[in-house]
Amino acid sequence: MDLVWISLISGIIGAIAAGYFARYILRQPEGTERIKELSGAIREGAMAFIRREYRTEIIVVIIVAVILGILGLATPDLGWKASVSFIFGAICSLGAGLIGMNVSTRSNGRTTAAVQKSLNQGLRVAFRSGAVMGLTVVSIGLVGLSIIYFAFHNDPNFLVTIPAYATGASLVALFARLGGGIFTKGADAGSDLVGKVEAGIPEDDPRNAGVIADFVGDNVGDVCGVGADLFESYVEANIAAITLSGLAVGIGIVTNAQTAWYLPLLISAGGIIASVIGSFMVRVGEKAEIAALSRALRNATWVSAILSAVFSFIIISLLGVNLGIFWALLAGLIVGVIIGEATNYYTSADFKPTREIAEAATIGGGATMVRGFAVGMLSNWPAVIATAVAIIIAFKFGGFYGVAIAAAGMLSTLGVTLACDSYGPVADNAGGIATMAGLPAEIRKKTDALDSVGNTTKATAKGFAIASAVMNALGLILSYGLAVGLVKVTQGQIMAAPELSLLSAPVIVGVILGALMPAVFVALAMKSVGVTAGLIVEEVRRQWREITGLREGTAKAQYSKCVDICTKAALKEMLAPSIMTIIAPVVVGVILGKYALGGFLVGSLAVGFVLANTLNNAGGAWDNAKKYIEDGNLGGKGSNAHKAAVVGDTTGDPMKDAAGPSLNIMLKLMAVVSLLLAPVLTNFPGLLG
Amino acid sequence: MDLVWISLISGIIGAIAAGYFARYILRQPEGTERIKELSGAIREGAMAFIRREYRTEIIVVIIVAVILGILGLATPDLGWKASVSFIFGAICSLGAGLIGMNVSTRSNGRTTAAVQKSLNQGLRVAFRSGAVMGLTVVSIGLVGLSIIYFAFHNDPNFLVTIPAYATGASLVALFARLGGGIFTKGADAGSDLVGKVEAGIPEDDPRNAGVIADFVGDNVGDVCGVGADLFESYVEANIAAITLSGLAVGIGIVTNAQTAWYLPLLISAGGIIASVIGSFMVRVGEKAEIAALSRALRNATWVSAILSAVFSFIIISLLGVNLGIFWALLAGLIVGVIIGEATNYYTSADFKPTREIAEAATIGGGATMVRGFAVGMLSNWPAVIATAVAIIIAFKFGGFYGVAIAAAGMLSTLGVTLACDSYGPVADNAGGIATMAGLPAEIRKKTDALDSVGNTTKATAKGFAIASAVMNALGLILSYGLAVGLVKVTQGQIMAAPELSLLSAPVIVGVILGALMPAVFVALAMKSVGVTAGLIVEEVRRQWREITGLREGTAKAQYSKCVDICTKAALKEMLAPSIMTIIAPVVVGVILGKYALGGFLVGSLAVGFVLANTLNNAGGAWDNAKKYIEDGNLGGKGSNAHKAAVVGDTTGDPMKDAAGPSLNIMLKLMAVVSLLLAPVLTNFPGLLG
Repeated sequence: MDLVWISLISGIIGAIAAGYFARYILRQPEGTERIKELSGAIREGAMAFIRREYRTEIIVVIIVAVILGILGLATPDLGWKASVSFIFGAICSLGAGLIGMNVSTRSNGRTTAAVQKSLNQGLRVAFRSGAVMGLTVVSIGLVGLSIIYFAFHNDPNFLVTIPAYATGASLVALFARLGGGIFTKGADAGSDLVGKVEAGIPEDDPRNAGVIADFVGDNVGDVCGVGADLFESYVEANIAAITLSGLAVGIGIVTNAQTAWYLPLLISAGGIIASVIGSFMVRVGEKAEIAALSRALRNATWVSAILSAVFSFIIISLLGVNLGIFWALLAGLIVGVIIGEATNYYTSADFKPTREIAEAATIGGGATMVRGFAVGMLSNWPAVIATAVAIIIAFKFGGFYGVAIAAAGMLSTLGVTLACDSYGPVADNAGGIATMAGLPAEIRKKTDALDSVGNTTKATAKGFAIASAVMNALGLILSYGLAVGLVKVTQGQIMAAPELSLLSAPVIVGVILGALMPAVFVALAMKSVGVTAGLIVEEVRRQWREITGLREGTAKAQYSKCVDICTKAALKEMLAPSIMTIIAPVVVGVILGKYALGGFLVGSLAVGFVLANTLNNAGGAWDNAKKYIEDGNLGGKGSNAHKAAVVGDTTGDPMKDAAGPSLNIMLKLMAVVSLLLAPVLTNFPGLLG
Repeated sequence: MDLVWISLISGIIGAIAAGYFARYILRQPEGTERIKELSGAIREGAMAFIRREYRTEIIVVIIVAVILGILGLATPDLGWKASVSFIFGAICSLGAGLIGMNVSTRSNGRTTAAVQKSLNQGLRVAFRSGAVMGLTVVSIGLVGLSIIYFAFHNDPNFLVTIPAYATGASLVALFARLGGGIFTKGADAGSDLVGKVEAGIPEDDPRNAGVIADFVGDNVGDVCGVGADLFESYVEANIAAITLSGLAVGIGIVTNAQTAWYLPLLISAGGIIASVIGSFMVRVGEKAEIAALSRALRNATWVSAILSAVFSFIIISLLGVNLGIFWALLAGLIVGVIIGEATNYYTSADFKPTREIAEAATIGGGATMVRGFAVGMLSNWPAVIATAVAIIIAFKFGGFYGVAIAAAGMLSTLGVTLACDSYGPVADNAGGIATMAGLPAEIRKKTDALDSVGNTTKATAKGFAIASAVMNALGLILSYGLAVGLVKVTQGQIMAAPELSLLSAPVIVGVILGALMPAVFVALAMKSVGVTAGLIVEEVRRQWREITGLREGTAKAQYSKCVDICTKAALKEMLAPSIMTIIAPVVVGVILGKYALGGFLVGSLAVGFVLANTLNNAGGAWDNAKKYIEDGNLGGKGSNAHKAAVVGDTTGDPMKDAAGPSLNIMLKLMAVVSLLLAPVLTNFPGLLG
């Protein structure tokens, strides 16, 4: 029997579990009319955005598919297969995002309603909503991979066709993360800022026309965007390992390519089962408080990780793969955990770095900024050193193939990791709905408590997303190197082309140009958020001025107008950085040649890694420093320290939720585009080469 | 005749010209008693700092010299020669800094006095002070190099001994830039901030005890620090070319190593003559206004550059060097100019980027920060692309040697470039003295005008410093690669060791770890400025509280206390990042081996380049956006926009004047330490290698 049937079946089991959780949620009461109305408005806005975003994406997907088809005409049969694989990858990612968001926007109001019964009831609805997203992403990912495998694995061009599946997923992910990020932070900053420009319009108030757009943003950015990001990482880890199979055979890790293909897919299959078990473990007594759920989430993650490691060990043994590869896998798993913990240390107000930012806020805005940046920059060290150690271990035990397996190991328990992450925005929305619906303060207190657990899991997941993106991008870069002939395996040794020497003009120039990419990408993304926020400020002020009765609360704000403005702005603004990301590797490869492109990818990886950590962690620390002050420390809300901390938070928001996370996808997308370009570049020296 | 006599003589000619300018300055009247008193206080503070800084530096220099001597014992004769060369390099740099600062602190008050006569008179004193610094740096640099050449060039270990000279200069430069940067920005931020914390203490007021420390900082940071930075670049460009001489012979650029040694030294000699001619050209009519001087400075720079190019062409022809190398040189010269202009575009309020930051300030602090960062990040593109093009050209026409010659070309006119730069802090000081001495508003207006020309030249020089540091660090990295045997020349072709493949674990891990260095370095430097500023705030408030009569202006502030605090804090805080910079390449080389170290240097170069540009240009743009608003735009001084802009400026200050410029030196120092380590690493595989 072809062992990939096991992967397919595991994927289906994951989907059944997701369906079970979804059914549970839909059976819960929807709450009062007001809650239903608000939840409905959010849902409507989110779906309106998704419809338009998907329309834009589908157009771009079709254009790229046609280009792929034409480029592939040179090789008989290749073109249409790559196109099909690419379109299928895009559809899978779009589908996973749609299902996840559909459930999250049906869960927010139900969570608010459930909290009115008991905190525990609210927790369960919110977490199960996250679990639907988590399990849907891994199930669709693995089922899709299995289908592509069955369709094409007997084709001689299999190793060229399958990366196209990842490229489809990557393109969708970039749009989802970047478009969603610009939407959510534009709406957030806009509806916050308006209160400062036009006195008397409070945040989270039904009279603020931007407020529904803000809640919509949580769904399209933090649920749909994050899901697409990690969907991409998930499938790419598998694909990188598959494309490196020849090398794994060459250096004697496995006896044949078929086994090297099985390994990642079976590790992922084991991970899904582990994630399902972990998700069902999240149960607490009826009277449990927040600390108990926090522990329950943590336990679920740990149990899944340990189970996944055990399953993987068994799979490696049964397949007769060199046992060393288990260490590579374990290195990946452990690094994911370390980076998550480090992120938490540098961004939580429970620890010194964020406390110091809060103290700097008592001096002023400038001091807050300087200290926050220092924290963000410094926070790189655990992530970078842990990743470096993992790479050394993975290489030692499995060469290039080991790096891809380390990434697969890290991502094997994605089902449960993503569940913990996607729980956050649902809890956040539930709190917003409680305020808007004018529910009593004690309910709002409970939703705040739910939200605070969500913030920790969100921070951890962000670190995890960066680490997995880096490991994956590296796996793909190595796949590119192998595909384009920069390295060859001769007599069990990996031999590099001397032209790939680090100290040659094309490689050095490539590295330097690669370093430029993340900087320009971040600049464009940050500017986009500013532009979108400016439009929202204008619109909210216009409604405040023109709608009679809005000020007094007797007339309603036109929420959909703001959603509409954010949608248009986000879709427009995401185009320039997206196109740049797709075009840049093509331009570098064609003009400077394949060696320069190798340097380009490594250069952007190094800078992107450091920048993504810096932006995420500085942003997270500023956010929590502000909350720390709002909790009554150092003068509390309204003090000068609070004002300074707000500046930090406003600066950090587009960094941590739009620019930073999109960098993850930029790195992966550039690598996978290069891999796809490999057949063209192999025998082409470059215009200046 | 040994042609290096020409270099020695040119260096002496430069020194004579510097002496002529110094004599001119010292003959100018010192001004009123009050001016003399203030200038004296600045001078005293600066000298007190320099004494202590030099004491610390000398201790570190001796320790490193002893280590070098011991490491060199393995090779007969090598140890003591490397130590001597190292100490000599350190002494030359210390001497150049001391002379420059001595003159600048004697010129500030004289400039104030001269301005009382005429604007033109003030301009002349300030520029000639800068010219003393510029010409002293290049003269001592070239004379020192010539002496080292005569002493050791017949020694078989010459190519190992001479980099030690650069290492000495580099170590001193790091202390000068970093210590000076922490001093100046700590004092500046501290004396600004105090007014916000304790109402009623204005900036630039004699009752603010931190104000003299602020002026002292301009001298120790912007004169001494910048001078040491560029002194290092200057000698390193020459040394990189010399150490790459074997390669130049191998690929047929020159017929023998001797010629390859002559070339950079003679290009530098021609550059000094060109700079002297350029400096004497800075003359304007008695009634000239600011625009005329701005033009005069620009003309001087251009004439020097063109003369230097012509001299270089003649030298290349006469030496019988492959004429292609001239294009490498020209590429370096032109890139220096392009980057200077780009820096000016992105940081001057005459252009769109800075104006947009000012407009964002009308929305609030957060918007100012986001827009400023976007500008800083985006500003990388012209610098990075110009450098990439220059590297391609330099490689094409001269291989590794071409890169070093491009750097030498870029730096050949340093005498006049640095003169224009060092003019800035003198003008700045002169303005401060005018205010403190209570001179009439029209005088302050004239000094402000002087200052504004200085700001432009300072911005241009900063871009130039980064570009030259990157080219130089690259030259040194290539020297390291050659010295350690990563590349070999066989039959006219440069052949790389396959282990140096970009896609190998040590190289990739090296690149990623290298990327970490600038981030951590910046974090430490920024935090240091914050710590120092905090101490100043405390001290100024203490004096305000405890000295009776200070508030009313009848008692004097104890300026020297603040100078003392800054001195101690700067010297203490600079140690951690400095030691990290020296130790890191040693640790990476010893643990991970020579290939990883190659990757490490390239990774830190790429990230450092992008970060240095970002920090410098974001900082410069924020500064000028604030000044633009203070000039009466968008609400003017005291408006909400101004408050937001002040936050940007306070954040940008430590970035652009402490952390950013110190990165230049970090990159060069790590490269030259690695080069010095080459003999040890050549046959050592690394503990994990």
